[in-house]
Amino acid sequence: MAVQLNDYIKENQLIVNQAIIEIVERMNIPTTLKNSMLYSIKAGGKRIRPILMIASAEAFGGTRDDVLPVAVALEMIHTYSLIHDDLPAMDDDQLRRGQPTNHIQFDEATAILAGDALLTMAFQVITEAKQLSAEQKVTVINRLSIASGSSGMVAGQILDLEAEEKQIDIAQLEQIHQLKTGELLIFAVEMGAYLAGASQTERLAVKQYGHHIGLLFQIQDDILDVEGDQIKLGKQVGSDQDNEKSTYPKLLGIDGAIKVKEKNVAMAIKLLEEATIANSMLASLVNYISDRDA
Amino acid sequence: MAVQLNDYIKENQLIVNQAIIEIVERMNIPTTLKNSMLYSIKAGGKRIRPILMIASAEAFGGTRDDVLPVAVALEMIHTYSLIHDDLPAMDDDQLRRGQPTNHIQFDEATAILAGDALLTMAFQVITEAKQLSAEQKVTVINRLSIASGSSGMVAGQILDLEAEEKQIDIAQLEQIHQLKTGELLIFAVEMGAYLAGASQTERLAVKQYGHHIGLLFQIQDDILDVEGDQIKLGKQVGSDQDNEKSTYPKLLGIDGAIKVKEKNVAMAIKLLEEATIANSMLASLVNYISDRDA
Repeated sequence: MAVQLNDYIKENQLIVNQAIIEIVERMNIPTTLKNSMLYSIKAGGKRIRPILMIASAEAFGGTRDDVLPVAVALEMIHTYSLIHDDLPAMDDDQLRRGQPTNHIQFDEATAILAGDALLTMAFQVITEAKQLSAEQKVTVINRLSIASGSSGMVAGQILDLEAEEKQIDIAQLEQIHQLKTGELLIFAVEMGAYLAGASQTERLAVKQYGHHIGLLFQIQDDILDVEGDQIKLGKQVGSDQDNEKSTYPKLLGIDGAIKVKEKNVAMAIKLLEEATIANSMLASLVNYISDRDA
Repeated sequence: MAVQLNDYIKENQLIVNQAIIEIVERMNIPTTLKNSMLYSIKAGGKRIRPILMIASAEAFGGTRDDVLPVAVALEMIHTYSLIHDDLPAMDDDQLRRGQPTNHIQFDEATAILAGDALLTMAFQVITEAKQLSAEQKVTVINRLSIASGSSGMVAGQILDLEAEEKQIDIAQLEQIHQLKTGELLIFAVEMGAYLAGASQTERLAVKQYGHHIGLLFQIQDDILDVEGDQIKLGKQVGSDQDNEKSTYPKLLGIDGAIKVKEKNVAMAIKLLEEATIANSMLASLVNYISDRDA
Protein backbone atom coordinates (compact mmCIF):
# COMPACT_ATOMS: atom_id res chain seq x y z
CA MET A 1 0.00 0.00 0.00
CA ALA A 2 2.79 2.43 0.95
CA VAL A 3 4.58 1.99 -2.36
CA GLN A 4 1.34 2.20 -4.26
CA LEU A 5 0.52 5.48 -2.49
CA ASN A 6 3.95 6.90 -3.26
CA ASP A 7 3.51 6.07 -6.95
CA TYR A 8 0.06 7.61 -6.88
CA ILE A 9 1.36 10.80 -5.32
CA LYS A 10 4.33 11.03 -7.68
CA GLU A 11 2.22 10.49 -10.77
CA ASN A 12 -0.31 13.08 -9.78
CA GLN A 13 2.34 15.59 -8.75
CA LEU A 14 3.85 15.20 -12.19
CA ILE A 15 0.56 15.66 -14.02
CA VAL A 16 -0.45 18.66 -11.90
CA ASN A 17 2.98 20.27 -12.30
CA GLN A 18 2.92 19.80 -16.06
CA ALA A 19 -0.57 21.25 -16.29
CA ILE A 20 0.22 24.37 -14.24
CA ILE A 21 3.50 25.06 -16.00
CA GLU A 22 1.96 24.59 -19.43
CA ILE A 23 -0.84 27.05 -18.67
CA VAL A 24 1.52 29.75 -17.40
CA GLU A 25 4.09 29.14 -20.15
CA ARG A 26 1.66 29.59 -23.00
CA MET A 27 0.30 32.91 -21.74
CA ASN A 28 1.59 36.24 -22.90
CA ILE A 29 3.13 37.58 -19.67
CA PRO A 30 6.02 40.06 -19.20
CA THR A 31 9.23 38.07 -18.73
CA THR A 32 10.10 38.95 -15.15
CA LEU A 33 6.55 38.40 -13.98
CA LYS A 34 6.30 35.05 -15.73
CA ASN A 35 9.67 33.93 -14.33
CA SER A 36 8.60 34.92 -10.85
CA MET A 37 5.32 33.02 -11.13
CA LEU A 38 7.05 29.93 -12.52
CA TYR A 39 9.78 30.13 -9.88
CA SER A 40 7.32 29.64 -7.04
CA ILE A 41 5.33 27.04 -8.97
CA LYS A 42 8.46 25.05 -9.70
CA ALA A 43 9.79 25.41 -6.15
CA GLY A 44 8.23 22.05 -5.41
CA GLY A 45 5.53 21.55 -2.91
CA LYS A 46 3.67 18.38 -2.18
CA ARG A 47 0.57 19.26 -4.21
CA ILE A 48 -1.52 17.89 -1.35
CA ARG A 49 -4.57 19.94 -2.30
CA PRO A 50 -4.73 18.87 -5.95
CA ILE A 51 -4.04 15.25 -4.96
CA LEU A 52 -6.83 15.30 -2.38
CA MET A 53 -9.18 16.72 -4.99
CA ILE A 54 -8.26 14.07 -7.54
CA ALA A 55 -8.53 11.28 -4.93
CA SER A 56 -11.92 12.55 -3.85
CA ALA A 57 -13.21 12.65 -7.43
CA GLU A 58 -11.93 9.11 -8.01
CA ALA A 59 -13.49 7.87 -4.77
CA PHE A 60 -16.87 8.82 -6.22
CA GLY A 61 -16.31 7.38 -9.67
CA GLY A 62 -14.83 10.47 -11.32
CA THR A 63 -11.48 10.83 -13.04
CA ARG A 64 -8.46 13.06 -12.69
CA ASP A 65 -9.35 14.76 -15.95
CA ASP A 66 -12.74 15.77 -14.57
CA VAL A 67 -11.10 17.98 -11.96
CA LEU A 68 -7.63 18.80 -13.28
CA PRO A 69 -8.24 22.49 -14.16
CA VAL A 70 -9.80 23.08 -10.76
CA ALA A 71 -6.91 21.27 -9.06
CA VAL A 72 -4.54 23.54 -10.99
CA ALA A 73 -6.50 26.65 -9.94
CA LEU A 74 -6.41 25.50 -6.33
CA GLU A 75 -2.64 25.04 -6.41
CA MET A 76 -2.24 28.49 -8.00
CA ILE A 77 -4.15 29.99 -5.09
CA HIS A 78 -2.08 28.03 -2.59
CA THR A 79 1.12 29.21 -4.30
CA TYR A 80 0.01 32.85 -4.32
CA SER A 81 -0.75 32.61 -0.61
CA LEU A 82 2.74 31.30 0.14
CA ILE A 83 4.37 34.11 -1.86
CA HIS A 84 2.39 36.77 -0.01
CA ASP A 85 2.75 35.09 3.40
CA ASP A 86 6.54 35.08 3.02
CA LEU A 87 6.74 38.86 2.36
CA PRO A 88 8.72 41.03 4.82
CA ALA A 89 5.51 42.71 6.00
CA MET A 90 3.98 39.30 6.76
CA ASP A 91 6.00 36.31 8.03
CA ASP A 92 9.27 37.69 6.60
CA ASP A 93 10.62 34.30 5.50
CA GLN A 94 13.80 34.06 3.45
CA LEU A 95 13.65 30.36 2.74
CA ARG A 96 10.91 28.02 1.59
CA ARG A 97 11.38 24.42 0.55
CA GLY A 98 15.12 24.98 0.79
CA GLN A 99 15.13 27.82 -1.72
CA PRO A 100 15.07 31.61 -1.43
CA THR A 101 11.52 32.90 -1.16
CA ASN A 102 10.08 34.76 -4.13
CA HIS A 103 10.79 38.29 -2.89
CA ILE A 104 14.40 37.31 -2.09
CA GLN A 105 14.94 35.72 -5.50
CA PHE A 106 13.21 38.61 -7.33
CA ASP A 107 12.09 41.63 -5.34
CA GLU A 108 9.13 42.60 -3.20
CA ALA A 109 7.18 44.36 -5.93
CA THR A 110 7.56 41.40 -8.27
CA ALA A 111 6.55 38.96 -5.54
CA ILE A 112 3.42 40.93 -4.72
CA LEU A 113 2.47 41.07 -8.40
CA ALA A 114 3.28 37.39 -9.00
CA GLY A 115 0.92 36.54 -6.15
CA ASP A 116 -1.80 38.81 -7.51
CA ALA A 117 -1.34 37.30 -10.96
CA LEU A 118 -1.58 33.68 -9.75
CA LEU A 119 -4.69 34.45 -7.72
CA THR A 120 -6.34 36.09 -10.73
CA MET A 121 -5.26 33.34 -13.11
CA ALA A 122 -6.83 30.66 -10.91
CA PHE A 123 -10.28 31.98 -11.78
CA GLN A 124 -9.44 32.33 -15.46
CA VAL A 125 -8.32 28.70 -15.60
CA ILE A 126 -11.64 27.49 -14.24
CA THR A 127 -13.65 29.56 -16.73
CA GLU A 128 -11.68 27.96 -19.58
CA ALA A 129 -12.04 24.34 -18.43
CA LYS A 130 -13.57 22.44 -21.36
CA GLN A 131 -14.77 19.54 -19.22
CA LEU A 132 -16.98 21.66 -16.95
CA SER A 133 -20.47 23.03 -17.54
CA ALA A 134 -21.15 26.72 -16.91
CA GLU A 135 -23.06 25.76 -13.75
CA GLN A 136 -20.13 23.72 -12.47
CA LYS A 137 -17.71 26.55 -13.18
CA VAL A 138 -19.87 29.03 -11.29
CA THR A 139 -20.24 26.69 -8.30
CA VAL A 140 -16.52 25.98 -8.17
CA ILE A 141 -15.52 29.65 -8.51
CA ASN A 142 -18.02 30.60 -5.84
CA ARG A 143 -16.65 28.05 -3.36
CA LEU A 144 -13.04 28.80 -4.20
CA SER A 145 -13.47 32.54 -3.76
CA ILE A 146 -15.18 32.02 -0.40
CA ALA A 147 -12.64 29.46 0.83
CA SER A 148 -9.67 31.62 -0.14
CA GLY A 149 -11.06 35.08 0.59
CA SER A 150 -11.84 37.40 3.47
CA SER A 151 -14.00 34.86 5.28
CA GLY A 152 -11.56 32.03 4.55
CA MET A 153 -7.83 31.84 3.96
CA VAL A 154 -7.17 35.60 4.02
CA ALA A 155 -9.13 35.85 7.28
CA GLY A 156 -6.96 33.08 8.70
CA GLN A 157 -3.80 34.89 7.72
CA ILE A 158 -4.77 38.16 9.38
CA LEU A 159 -5.93 36.38 12.54
CA ASP A 160 -2.65 34.45 12.55
CA LEU A 161 -0.66 37.70 12.32
CA GLU A 162 -2.75 39.23 15.08
CA ALA A 163 -2.21 36.18 17.29
CA GLU A 164 1.57 36.44 17.15
CA GLU A 165 3.20 36.81 20.52
CA LYS A 166 -0.23 36.63 22.07
CA GLN A 167 -1.65 33.93 24.33
CA ILE A 168 -4.47 32.14 22.52
CA ASP A 169 -6.35 29.00 23.47
CA ILE A 170 -6.95 25.78 21.54
CA ALA A 171 -10.31 26.98 20.22
CA GLN A 172 -8.78 30.15 18.75
CA LEU A 173 -5.86 28.17 17.37
CA GLU A 174 -8.25 25.75 15.66
CA GLN A 175 -10.25 28.62 14.20
CA ILE A 176 -7.15 30.22 12.70
CA HIS A 177 -6.02 26.96 11.12
CA GLN A 178 -9.51 26.09 9.98
CA LEU A 179 -9.57 29.37 8.02
CA LYS A 180 -5.95 29.51 6.93
CA THR A 181 -5.51 25.89 5.84
CA GLY A 182 -8.71 23.98 6.46
CA GLU A 183 -11.05 25.80 4.10
CA LEU A 184 -8.95 25.06 1.00
CA LEU A 185 -8.51 21.41 2.01
CA ILE A 186 -12.26 21.10 2.45
CA PHE A 187 -12.76 22.82 -0.90
CA ALA A 188 -10.44 20.24 -2.47
CA VAL A 189 -12.31 17.16 -1.31
CA GLU A 190 -15.81 18.61 -1.46
CA MET A 191 -15.47 19.96 -4.99
CA GLY A 192 -13.72 16.78 -6.11
CA ALA A 193 -16.78 14.86 -4.94
CA TYR A 194 -19.17 17.41 -6.44
CA LEU A 195 -17.56 17.29 -9.87
CA ALA A 196 -17.66 13.47 -9.76
CA GLY A 197 -21.40 13.62 -9.17
CA ALA A 198 -21.44 12.65 -5.48
CA SER A 199 -24.70 13.01 -3.55
CA GLN A 200 -25.31 15.72 -0.93
CA THR A 201 -24.76 13.14 1.83
CA GLU A 202 -21.50 12.01 0.29
CA ARG A 203 -20.37 15.62 -0.09
CA LEU A 204 -21.14 16.26 3.56
CA ALA A 205 -19.14 13.22 4.66
CA VAL A 206 -16.14 14.21 2.60
CA LYS A 207 -16.39 17.78 3.89
CA GLN A 208 -16.13 16.51 7.45
CA TYR A 209 -13.24 14.31 6.37
CA GLY A 210 -11.59 17.46 5.00
CA HIS A 211 -12.09 19.17 8.34
CA HIS A 212 -10.16 16.44 10.18
CA ILE A 213 -7.51 16.34 7.48
CA GLY A 214 -7.00 20.08 7.98
CA LEU A 215 -6.51 19.67 11.71
CA LEU A 216 -4.12 16.75 11.53
CA PHE A 217 -2.23 18.49 8.74
CA GLN A 218 -1.65 21.48 10.98
CA ILE A 219 -0.81 19.46 14.08
CA GLN A 220 1.81 17.53 12.13
CA ASP A 221 3.17 20.85 10.83
CA ASP A 222 3.56 22.08 14.38
CA ILE A 223 5.14 18.80 15.50
CA LEU A 224 7.63 18.95 12.64
CA ASP A 225 8.62 22.45 13.70
CA VAL A 226 9.69 20.93 17.03
CA GLU A 227 10.97 17.50 16.00
CA GLY A 228 11.46 17.72 12.24
CA ASP A 229 14.58 17.44 10.12
CA GLN A 230 15.66 20.85 8.83
CA ILE A 231 17.11 19.35 5.64
CA LYS A 232 13.98 17.40 4.73
CA LEU A 233 11.74 20.31 5.58
CA GLY A 234 13.82 22.81 3.61
CA LYS A 235 13.22 25.41 6.29
CA GLN A 236 14.40 26.27 9.75
CA VAL A 237 12.83 24.30 12.58
CA GLY A 238 12.08 25.90 15.92
CA SER A 239 10.83 29.08 14.27
CA ASP A 240 7.42 28.80 15.95
CA GLN A 241 9.08 28.75 19.35
CA ASP A 242 11.34 31.66 18.41
CA ASN A 243 8.28 33.62 17.30
CA GLU A 244 6.47 32.65 20.52
CA LYS A 245 3.76 31.30 18.31
CA SER A 246 0.87 29.35 19.77
CA THR A 247 1.08 25.77 18.50
CA TYR A 248 -0.44 22.43 19.42
CA PRO A 249 2.78 21.14 21.04
CA LYS A 250 3.09 24.35 23.01
CA LEU A 251 -0.50 24.23 24.24
CA LEU A 252 -0.77 20.45 24.71
CA GLY A 253 2.81 19.14 24.84
CA ILE A 254 4.16 16.83 22.16
CA ASP A 255 2.34 13.78 23.52
CA GLY A 256 -0.90 15.70 23.80
CA ALA A 257 -0.53 16.97 20.24
CA ILE A 258 0.12 13.45 18.93
CA LYS A 259 -2.96 12.19 20.78
CA VAL A 260 -5.19 14.86 19.21
CA LYS A 261 -3.68 14.12 15.82
CA GLU A 262 -4.44 10.41 16.18
CA LYS A 263 -7.98 11.18 17.21
CA ASN A 264 -8.43 13.15 13.99
CA VAL A 265 -6.89 10.33 11.96
CA ALA A 266 -9.39 7.91 13.45
CA MET A 267 -12.32 10.23 12.80
CA ALA A 268 -11.28 10.85 9.19
CA ILE A 269 -11.06 7.09 8.55
CA LYS A 270 -14.39 6.47 10.27
CA LEU A 271 -16.08 9.03 7.98
CA LEU A 272 -14.66 7.29 4.91
CA GLU A 273 -15.93 3.94 6.21
CA GLU A 274 -19.41 5.32 6.75
CA ALA A 275 -19.41 6.72 3.21
CA THR A 276 -18.15 3.31 1.97
CA ILE A 277 -15.08 4.86 0.38
CA ALA A 278 -12.52 3.62 2.91
CA ASN A 279 -10.82 1.61 0.17
CA SER A 280 -10.09 4.81 -1.80
CA MET A 281 -6.82 6.73 -1.90
CA LEU A 282 -8.42 9.18 0.53
CA ALA A 283 -7.74 6.63 3.27
CA SER A 284 -4.05 6.20 2.45
CA LEU A 285 -3.71 9.96 2.28
CA VAL A 286 -4.82 10.32 5.90
CA ASN A 287 -1.77 8.41 7.10
CA TYR A 288 0.48 10.08 4.55
CA ILE A 289 -0.47 13.52 5.82
CA SER A 290 -0.33 12.44 9.45
CA ASP A 291 3.08 10.76 9.23
CA ARG A 292 4.88 12.93 6.68
CA ASP A 293 8.36 14.14 7.60
CA ALA A 294 8.31 17.24 5.35
CA MET B 1 -26.18 68.58 -20.55
CA ALA B 2 -23.38 69.30 -18.08
CA VAL B 3 -25.75 69.40 -15.14
CA GLN B 4 -27.57 66.33 -16.36
CA LEU B 5 -24.27 64.46 -16.61
CA ASN B 6 -23.26 65.55 -13.13
CA ASP B 7 -26.55 64.28 -11.73
CA TYR B 8 -26.10 61.04 -13.63
CA ILE B 9 -22.62 60.56 -12.25
CA LYS B 10 -23.63 61.43 -8.71
CA GLU B 11 -26.60 59.11 -8.72
CA ASN B 12 -24.60 56.20 -10.04
CA GLN B 13 -21.72 56.84 -7.67
CA LEU B 14 -24.19 56.69 -4.81
CA ILE B 15 -25.79 53.45 -5.98
CA VAL B 16 -22.44 51.78 -6.66
CA ASN B 17 -21.02 52.90 -3.32
CA GLN B 18 -24.06 51.62 -1.45
CA ALA B 19 -23.89 48.29 -3.25
CA ILE B 20 -20.18 47.71 -2.55
CA ILE B 21 -20.40 48.76 1.07
CA GLU B 22 -23.48 46.63 1.70
CA ILE B 23 -21.78 43.54 0.27
CA VAL B 24 -18.63 43.96 2.35
CA GLU B 25 -20.56 44.93 5.49
CA ARG B 26 -22.75 41.85 5.52
CA MET B 27 -19.87 39.40 5.19
CA ASN B 28 -18.23 37.73 8.14
CA ILE B 29 -14.73 39.24 7.98
CA PRO B 30 -12.21 39.82 10.83
CA THR B 31 -12.64 43.39 12.06
CA THR B 32 -9.30 44.90 11.05
CA LEU B 33 -9.46 43.34 7.61
CA LYS B 34 -13.02 44.54 7.04
CA ASN B 35 -12.15 48.05 8.23
CA SER B 36 -9.17 48.16 5.92
CA MET B 37 -11.23 47.02 2.92
CA LEU B 38 -13.98 49.53 3.69
CA TYR B 39 -11.45 52.31 4.28
CA SER B 40 -10.19 52.13 0.71
CA ILE B 41 -13.66 51.64 -0.72
CA LYS B 42 -14.96 54.66 1.15
CA ALA B 43 -11.93 56.79 0.25
CA GLY B 44 -13.92 58.13 -2.64
CA GLY B 45 -12.93 57.65 -6.20
CA LYS B 46 -14.88 58.69 -9.26
CA ARG B 47 -16.30 55.21 -9.99
CA ILE B 48 -15.52 55.86 -13.66
CA ARG B 49 -15.38 52.16 -14.48
CA PRO B 50 -18.76 51.22 -13.00
CA ILE B 51 -20.34 54.32 -14.54
CA LEU B 52 -18.95 53.49 -17.97
CA MET B 53 -20.30 49.97 -17.62
CA ILE B 54 -23.74 51.19 -16.62
CA ALA B 55 -23.79 53.81 -19.42
CA SER B 56 -22.77 51.19 -21.94
CA ALA B 57 -25.51 48.80 -20.83
CA GLU B 58 -28.07 51.62 -21.03
CA ALA B 59 -26.84 52.68 -24.48
CA PHE B 60 -27.87 49.23 -25.72
CA GLY B 61 -31.21 49.08 -23.96
CA GLY B 62 -30.08 47.48 -20.72
CA THR B 63 -30.46 48.79 -17.18
CA ARG B 64 -28.18 49.57 -14.30
CA ASP B 65 -29.55 46.59 -12.41
CA ASP B 66 -28.48 44.25 -15.21
CA VAL B 67 -24.83 45.04 -14.59
CA LEU B 68 -24.62 46.32 -11.00
CA PRO B 69 -22.90 43.26 -9.46
CA VAL B 70 -20.32 43.25 -12.25
CA ALA B 71 -19.79 47.00 -11.85
CA VAL B 72 -19.23 46.38 -8.14
CA ALA B 73 -16.75 43.57 -8.86
CA LEU B 74 -14.90 45.82 -11.28
CA GLU B 75 -14.58 48.59 -8.71
CA MET B 76 -13.36 46.07 -6.11
CA ILE B 77 -10.60 45.04 -8.52
CA HIS B 78 -9.74 48.67 -9.21
CA THR B 79 -9.61 49.38 -5.47
CA TYR B 80 -7.38 46.38 -4.76
CA SER B 81 -4.99 47.54 -7.50
CA LEU B 82 -4.71 50.99 -5.94
CA ILE B 83 -3.98 49.52 -2.49
CA HIS B 84 -1.22 47.28 -3.86
CA ASP B 85 0.19 49.97 -6.20
CA ASP B 86 0.58 52.35 -3.26
CA LEU B 87 2.67 49.88 -1.20
CA PRO B 88 6.24 50.85 -0.26
CA ALA B 89 7.65 48.15 -2.54
CA MET B 90 5.64 49.55 -5.46
CA ASP B 91 4.93 53.28 -5.93
CA ASP B 92 5.41 54.03 -2.22
CA ASP B 93 2.59 56.58 -2.01
CA GLN B 94 1.51 58.01 1.34
CA LEU B 95 -1.49 59.93 0.11
CA ARG B 96 -4.39 59.07 -2.17
CA ARG B 97 -7.46 61.21 -2.71
CA GLY B 98 -6.22 63.46 0.08
CA GLN B 99 -6.14 60.66 2.63
CA PRO B 100 -3.42 58.39 3.98
CA THR B 101 -2.99 55.32 1.78
CA ASN B 102 -4.16 51.99 3.17
CA HIS B 103 -0.77 50.79 4.43
CA ILE B 104 -0.20 54.14 6.18
CA GLN B 105 -3.63 54.09 7.83
CA PHE B 106 -3.33 50.40 8.80
CA ASP B 107 -0.08 48.57 8.10
CA GLU B 108 1.58 46.87 5.17
CA ALA B 109 0.44 43.36 6.01
CA THR B 110 -3.16 44.48 6.38
CA ALA B 111 -2.99 46.45 3.13
CA ILE B 112 -1.65 43.46 1.21
CA LEU B 113 -4.39 41.25 2.64
CA ALA B 114 -7.14 43.82 2.06
CA GLY B 115 -6.08 43.94 -1.59
CA ASP B 116 -6.02 40.15 -1.85
CA ALA B 117 -9.44 39.99 -0.22
CA LEU B 118 -11.03 42.57 -2.54
CA LEU B 119 -9.61 40.84 -5.60
CA THR B 120 -10.98 37.50 -4.45
CA MET B 121 -14.34 38.95 -3.46
CA ALA B 122 -14.83 40.46 -6.91
CA PHE B 123 -15.18 36.97 -8.38
CA GLN B 124 -17.45 35.82 -5.58
CA VAL B 125 -19.80 38.76 -6.17
CA ILE B 126 -20.21 37.86 -9.83
CA THR B 127 -20.99 34.21 -9.03
CA GLU B 128 -23.75 35.35 -6.66
CA ALA B 129 -25.43 37.82 -9.07
CA LYS B 130 -29.08 36.77 -9.30
CA GLN B 131 -29.69 38.66 -12.56
CA LEU B 132 -27.05 36.79 -14.55
CA SER B 133 -27.17 33.36 -16.18
CA ALA B 134 -24.37 30.87 -15.51
CA GLU B 135 -23.05 31.48 -19.04
CA GLN B 136 -22.98 35.24 -18.48
CA LYS B 137 -21.17 34.81 -15.17
CA VAL B 138 -18.53 32.60 -16.77
CA THR B 139 -18.00 35.03 -19.67
CA VAL B 140 -17.71 38.01 -17.36
CA ILE B 141 -15.33 36.26 -14.95
CA ASN B 142 -13.21 35.09 -17.85
CA ARG B 143 -12.90 38.59 -19.29
CA LEU B 144 -12.35 40.21 -15.91
CA SER B 145 -9.59 37.79 -14.93
CA ILE B 146 -7.84 38.33 -18.27
CA ALA B 147 -8.20 42.13 -18.16
CA SER B 148 -6.92 42.38 -14.60
CA GLY B 149 -4.34 39.59 -14.60
CA SER B 150 -0.84 38.81 -15.81
CA SER B 151 -1.62 39.69 -19.42
CA GLY B 152 -3.59 42.79 -18.42
CA MET B 153 -3.48 45.15 -15.47
CA VAL B 154 -0.81 43.28 -13.49
CA ALA B 155 1.35 43.14 -16.62
CA GLY B 156 0.93 46.91 -16.99
CA GLN B 157 2.00 47.49 -13.41
CA ILE B 158 5.22 45.49 -13.70
CA LEU B 159 6.08 47.12 -17.04
CA ASP B 160 5.40 50.51 -15.47
CA LEU B 161 7.75 49.74 -12.57
CA GLU B 162 10.39 48.51 -15.00
CA ALA B 163 10.06 51.68 -17.10
CA GLU B 164 10.80 53.98 -14.17
CA GLU B 165 13.77 56.25 -14.75
CA LYS B 166 14.16 54.67 -18.16
CA GLN B 167 13.74 56.33 -21.55
CA ILE B 168 10.72 54.79 -23.30
CA ASP B 169 8.97 55.87 -26.49
CA ILE B 170 5.31 56.69 -27.14
CA ALA B 171 4.54 53.16 -28.33
CA GLN B 172 5.89 51.63 -25.13
CA LEU B 173 4.09 54.24 -23.05
CA GLU B 174 0.82 53.44 -24.80
CA GLN B 175 1.32 49.72 -24.26
CA ILE B 176 1.84 50.20 -20.53
CA HIS B 177 -1.27 52.34 -20.16
CA GLN B 178 -3.29 50.05 -22.39
CA LEU B 179 -2.51 47.19 -20.01
CA LYS B 180 -2.56 49.08 -16.73
CA THR B 181 -5.69 51.16 -17.29
CA GLY B 182 -7.10 50.46 -20.72
CA GLU B 183 -8.01 46.80 -20.34
CA LEU B 184 -10.35 47.40 -17.41
CA LEU B 185 -12.00 50.37 -19.14
CA ILE B 186 -12.56 48.22 -22.22
CA PHE B 187 -13.91 45.46 -20.00
CA ALA B 188 -16.35 47.97 -18.50
CA VAL B 189 -17.92 49.10 -21.75
CA GLU B 190 -17.69 45.80 -23.61
CA MET B 191 -19.27 43.75 -20.83
CA GLY B 192 -21.89 46.45 -20.25
CA ALA B 193 -22.87 46.06 -23.90
CA TYR B 194 -22.70 42.25 -23.74
CA LEU B 195 -24.96 42.01 -20.70
CA ALA B 196 -27.45 44.37 -22.39
CA GLY B 197 -27.61 42.01 -25.36
CA ALA B 198 -25.60 44.09 -27.86
CA SER B 199 -24.55 42.48 -31.14
CA GLN B 200 -20.97 41.46 -31.93
CA THR B 201 -20.59 44.56 -34.14
CA GLU B 202 -21.86 46.82 -31.38
CA ARG B 203 -19.51 45.17 -28.89
CA LEU B 204 -16.59 45.75 -31.20
CA ALA B 205 -17.48 49.44 -31.64
CA VAL B 206 -17.76 49.99 -27.92
CA LYS B 207 -14.49 48.11 -27.36
CA GLN B 208 -12.72 50.54 -29.68
CA TYR B 209 -14.46 53.40 -27.89
CA GLY B 210 -13.04 51.99 -24.66
CA HIS B 211 -9.58 51.95 -26.17
CA HIS B 212 -9.72 55.69 -26.94
CA ILE B 213 -11.25 56.41 -23.53
CA GLY B 214 -8.30 54.64 -21.95
CA LEU B 215 -5.80 56.75 -23.83
CA LEU B 216 -7.45 60.10 -23.20
CA PHE B 217 -7.96 59.13 -19.57
CA GLN B 218 -4.25 58.58 -19.17
CA ILE B 219 -3.21 61.66 -21.13
CA GLN B 220 -5.44 63.81 -18.92
CA ASP B 221 -3.90 62.13 -15.86
CA ASP B 222 -0.44 63.09 -17.07
CA ILE B 223 -1.54 66.65 -17.90
CA LEU B 224 -3.06 67.05 -14.43
CA ASP B 225 0.22 65.97 -12.89
CA VAL B 226 1.80 69.02 -14.60
CA GLU B 227 -1.00 71.56 -14.51
CA GLY B 228 -3.48 70.23 -11.96
CA ASP B 229 -4.65 71.61 -8.65
CA GLN B 230 -3.12 69.69 -5.75
CA ILE B 231 -6.15 70.28 -3.52
CA LYS B 232 -8.68 69.03 -6.06
CA LEU B 233 -6.51 66.07 -6.98
CA GLY B 234 -5.89 65.09 -3.36
CA LYS B 235 -2.32 64.19 -4.22
CA GLN B 236 0.98 65.87 -4.96
CA VAL B 237 1.40 67.20 -8.49
CA GLY B 238 4.75 67.08 -10.24
CA SER B 239 5.48 63.60 -8.92
CA ASP B 240 5.89 62.16 -12.42
CA GLN B 241 8.61 64.69 -13.16
CA ASP B 242 10.28 64.03 -9.81
CA ASN B 243 10.23 60.31 -10.60
CA GLU B 244 11.58 61.01 -14.10
CA LYS B 245 8.60 59.13 -15.36
CA SER B 246 7.82 58.99 -19.05
CA THR B 247 4.55 60.82 -19.65
CA TYR B 248 2.70 62.26 -22.63
CA PRO B 249 3.58 65.89 -21.76
CA LYS B 250 7.20 64.90 -21.31
CA LEU B 251 7.38 63.09 -24.65
CA LEU B 252 5.13 65.45 -26.65
CA GLY B 253 5.01 68.70 -24.69
CA ILE B 254 1.75 69.95 -23.13
CA ASP B 255 0.38 71.18 -26.47
CA GLY B 256 1.29 67.93 -28.18
CA ALA B 257 -0.37 65.93 -25.40
CA ILE B 258 -3.53 68.01 -25.63
CA LYS B 259 -3.60 67.49 -29.38
CA VAL B 260 -3.38 63.70 -29.02
CA LYS B 261 -6.04 63.77 -26.35
CA GLU B 262 -8.40 65.71 -28.60
CA LYS B 263 -7.78 63.28 -31.41
CA ASN B 264 -8.86 60.44 -29.13
CA VAL B 265 -11.93 62.41 -28.04
CA ALA B 266 -12.93 62.83 -31.68
CA MET B 267 -12.38 59.17 -32.47
CA ALA B 268 -14.39 58.01 -29.46
CA ILE B 269 -17.31 60.23 -30.48
CA LYS B 270 -17.08 59.08 -34.10
CA LEU B 271 -17.34 55.43 -32.99
CA LEU B 272 -20.45 56.21 -30.97
CA GLU B 273 -21.99 57.97 -33.97
CA GLU B 274 -21.29 55.01 -36.21
CA ALA B 275 -22.92 52.71 -33.66
CA THR B 276 -25.89 55.15 -33.46
CA ILE B 277 -25.42 55.58 -29.71
CA ALA B 278 -23.99 59.11 -29.80
CA ASN B 279 -26.98 60.37 -27.83
CA SER B 280 -26.15 58.07 -24.91
CA MET B 281 -24.33 59.02 -21.73
CA LEU B 282 -21.23 57.42 -23.24
CA ALA B 283 -20.84 60.60 -25.33
CA SER B 284 -21.05 62.98 -22.38
CA LEU B 285 -18.59 60.80 -20.50
CA VAL B 286 -15.94 61.32 -23.17
CA ASN B 287 -15.80 65.02 -22.42
CA TYR B 288 -16.12 64.45 -18.70
CA ILE B 289 -13.07 62.20 -18.68
CA SER B 290 -11.16 64.46 -21.05
CA ASP B 291 -11.82 67.71 -19.15
CA ARG B 292 -11.91 66.50 -15.54
CA ASP B 293 -9.81 68.44 -13.06
CA ALA B 294 -9.36 65.58 -10.59
